[in-house]
Amino acid sequence: MPTRIDLNCDMGESFGVYKLGRDKEVMDYISSANIACGWHAGDPLVMEETVRLAKEKGVAVGAHPGYPDLLGFGRRRMDLSPSEMEAYLLYQMGALSAFAKAYGLQLQHVKAHGALGNLAFVDLETSKTIARAAARFSKEIVFVALAGSVMVQAAKEVGVRYVEEVYADRVYNPDGTLQSRKIAGSVIHDPEKAAKQALTIVQEGYVVAHDGTKVKVKPDTLCVHGDTPGAIAILQKIREELKKASIAVKPMGQ
Amino acid sequence: MPTRIDLNCDMGESFGVYKLGRDKEVMDYISSANIACGWHAGDPLVMEETVRLAKEKGVAVGAHPGYPDLLGFGRRRMDLSPSEMEAYLLYQMGALSAFAKAYGLQLQHVKAHGALGNLAFVDLETSKTIARAAARFSKEIVFVALAGSVMVQAAKEVGVRYVEEVYADRVYNPDGTLQSRKIAGSVIHDPEKAAKQALTIVQEGYVVAHDGTKVKVKPDTLCVHGDTPGAIAILQKIREELKKASIAVKPMGQ
Amino acid sequence: MPTRIDLNCDMGESFGVYKLGRDKEVMDYISSANIACGWHAGDPLVMEETVRLAKEKGVAVGAHPGYPDLLGFGRRRMDLSPSEMEAYLLYQMGALSAFAKAYGLQLQHVKAHGALGNLAFVDLETSKTIARAAARFSKEIVFVALAGSVMVQAAKEVGVRYVEEVYADRVYNPDGTLQSRKIAGSVIHDPEKAAKQALTIVQEGYVVAHDGTKVKVKPDTLCVHGDTPGAIAILQKIREELKKASIAVKPMGQ
Amino acid sequence: MPTRIDLNCDMGESFGVYKLGRDKEVMDYISSANIACGWHAGDPLVMEETVRLAKEKGVAVGAHPGYPDLLGFGRRRMDLSPSEMEAYLLYQMGALSAFAKAYGLQLQHVKAHGALGNLAFVDLETSKTIARAAARFSKEIVFVALAGSVMVQAAKEVGVRYVEEVYADRVYNPDGTLQSRKIAGSVIHDPEKAAKQALTIVQEGYVVAHDGTKVKVKPDTLCVHGDTPGAIAILQKIREELKKASIAVKPMGQ
Repeated sequence: MPTRIDLNCDMGESFGVYKLGRDKEVMDYISSANIACGWHAGDPLVMEETVRLAKEKGVAVGAHPGYPDLLGFGRRRMDLSPSEMEAYLLYQMGALSAFAKAYGLQLQHVKAHGALGNLAFVDLETSKTIARAAARFSKEIVFVALAGSVMVQAAKEVGVRYVEEVYADRVYNPDGTLQSRKIAGSVIHDPEKAAKQALTIVQEGYVVAHDGTKVKVKPDTLCVHGDTPGAIAILQKIREELKKASIAVKPMGQ
Repeated sequence: MPTRIDLNCDMGESFGVYKLGRDKEVMDYISSANIACGWHAGDPLVMEETVRLAKEKGVAVGAHPGYPDLLGFGRRRMDLSPSEMEAYLLYQMGALSAFAKAYGLQLQHVKAHGALGNLAFVDLETSKTIARAAARFSKEIVFVALAGSVMVQAAKEVGVRYVEEVYADRVYNPDGTLQSRKIAGSVIHDPEKAAKQALTIVQEGYVVAHDGTKVKVKPDTLCVHGDTPGAIAILQKIREELKKASIAVKPMGQ
Repeated sequence: MPTRIDLNCDMGESFGVYKLGRDKEVMDYISSANIACGWHAGDPLVMEETVRLAKEKGVAVGAHPGYPDLLGFGRRRMDLSPSEMEAYLLYQMGALSAFAKAYGLQLQHVKAHGALGNLAFVDLETSKTIARAAARFSKEIVFVALAGSVMVQAAKEVGVRYVEEVYADRVYNPDGTLQSRKIAGSVIHDPEKAAKQALTIVQEGYVVAHDGTKVKVKPDTLCVHGDTPGAIAILQKIREELKKASIAVKPMGQ
Repeated sequence: MPTRIDLNCDMGESFGVYKLGRDKEVMDYISSANIACGWHAGDPLVMEETVRLAKEKGVAVGAHPGYPDLLGFGRRRMDLSPSEMEAYLLYQMGALSAFAKAYGLQLQHVKAHGALGNLAFVDLETSKTIARAAARFSKEIVFVALAGSVMVQAAKEVGVRYVEEVYADRVYNPDGTLQSRKIAGSVIHDPEKAAKQALTIVQEGYVVAHDGTKVKVKPDTLCVHGDTPGAIAILQKIREELKKASIAVKPMGQ
């Protein structure tokens, strides 16, 4: 019976005068923060403040790199060569690592953002590029792979530390992929539902797809969105249920 | 009698399809490369290639951070707060450090670029901001200070490793500052002259200002521009004269 | 006795996923919109939507160009040459004009944003650069000058259409300059106070400085901030008072 | 028998300190300049200088808009929505038009750059988006369509002025598409060959594909690359041959 899980959330997505997300509140509920690195969101001041806050709250920090597309928040696919992508990822991980170092921390993990992340879910080559960048960055860094996807295969082929990730607040397809956000209802906003999905994932090792199929998963970390309207309520409920079930919330890298 | 000196040069200033400088050739003559970090020049692919080349040639790598102004090549002063500047510098050092790590190297030094560097020459607060960013980045990194300037004072006040730098191919004012580039003839293009200035600096410990004044300097590293028409000829001549004088060329951080 | 005035407000400052301001509500109260042009804020989609909305509401559109500094929202001074600044302003006015054309409108005015605007308030050369860019853009465009400042002199010297602008919700110094925002209380948040200042400006032709001095002004347009907490309340109150006084609110260019 | 043709070439692709192309020389041989608008290349100073030069040489100016990807020179496809693309194109056309206006000129044409242009060659929706942006910009502007491609269909469906373009220095496939640059030899560097292809296109109304197939074309404008090593020699030879054949070189919009 599993006794621990990691909770990760995207953080540090503000930019200059523009504020996004509720980082300060969300940080109280998670164990790992995926921090934007200034290419699709975030800027050095935001990165510094987010790392400082994570340290204060005992949350582990990871890089959340994306496409060079601030205008599109990294949500638009770009046709990059593997060497371009690999260099862009190293750059972003490195940039964030300076703030981690300044606060006596290390980058725990790397998780691709937006359209790049979505592409990695289904494209082995992209997954391997991200895994390679992670492996080149350090031996300790953890590559976050969508549970059961080609990302796991990529991690194994490249030879990088990895964890498998399941979404607590996303609807799944029977084949284990995430239902497209373009379909209404793909993001779960009901705290009860999300908490139940979270608990089933951790305790039972499966997630129930939209047609009822039980998709087996091996969860190391649960992702919850921090920018949805009810994010805090969802996070509270998940923490509450995990506590009741005596499942500790701890950073994925420990 | 000094038996060694460092030679540093700005590198990695190309961007995307745009080529600048003669990095490949210059790298044969220097011991430390100041590598642009993508904010005023350079991009991740250029950074990776420059680090790779430096490693191949046994040249130590350092960060050459600048203002967020690609359009102006970092040559236009921006009114940034110390906390903005400090975060921007950490970001850039971190970004470059990822490529250094990927090639098994460490960032040896940091040297501010363009208008930021010029401001640091004369402004203690700016110098301290850069020194502070360096100190926060690591204990080992070397802060490059213009010899005899407020940068040296800043390094001491902040408590960061530093070296003093003298320019081999720039004309000096009697007060030890660099003659403005706006004055014709401020950059020395004659290899004989530059080599003579380099040797006097290293062997005699002074640089002759434009009015004949001997300005005392304590040189740890000599800067030579790599983008002037006769850069290679100047570098060759300097190396030749240093060799004759049995002065070894070695990275500043060793 | 004046029977009309223009009300202008900064608009279109959102960027990508980042939302700023309450454009939709504010647009109901103003006659001229200063629209960001994508360099310090705004993007093409935001510009299009803002122009569309202005047309729908019968509000005249103008350019609100700024420094190339999205990271700093154009609030940090940059040392640009006059030719750089002039070209940057033409670029931004042109960019916005395409959306105006697409909706059958013309750019009515140009008003510099942030640190550039602040510099223009006190620096004749900067004011002339902006005036020159406006004059080169078209004969019809109106250059918005801070009432009584060097901007008015610049407009006359360059020979460009201009209007004089007074702030309804900013505290004035006795010399007719704006009290620095760094001083607490420099922005008026009380609707009564702002409306009274607006009315005094329009009806009496002066603004009362913080020490009671009556500063004579020749107002063509009143500026009100749209991003302060009570912006809507202030705008409502100003419109109410202007209506009582039978002063029509009409675009400055008519 | 045709007595005139237009010659167009990409211009204004320098950026900041970075120089690209030989605009000053090329401008002597062409009748229409496709000017980069600052998103994938070019900047306001470069745009101004390119427009000034075009005016001096009697060359008509057009916009050469691209993806928001300076880092990739607009050569990497991005998944943009039609409304994003349309707004980005309007923005870029508008920006350039300000410089045209400042020099008493009008934008004659618009031609998409790089990966966007390549996509338009084969994708009707993309072609229609560009055509729509052109039509919204003005009634006079000419949309440059690859001869015989879906771009011609798009122009007709949208109802925009258009011309058909044939490449003088590119190898054609038998179906009228351009042979991919990834295949060696796809760009013609031999002045004799390019001039012969140009003349055949203009006088005979066909282009000979790599397998000998005669592809019928209705050429209004010939494109020649200005950044290839032998660009000037090719342009000289084409002009010489056109002159011999009494074919005048005139802007497409006249």
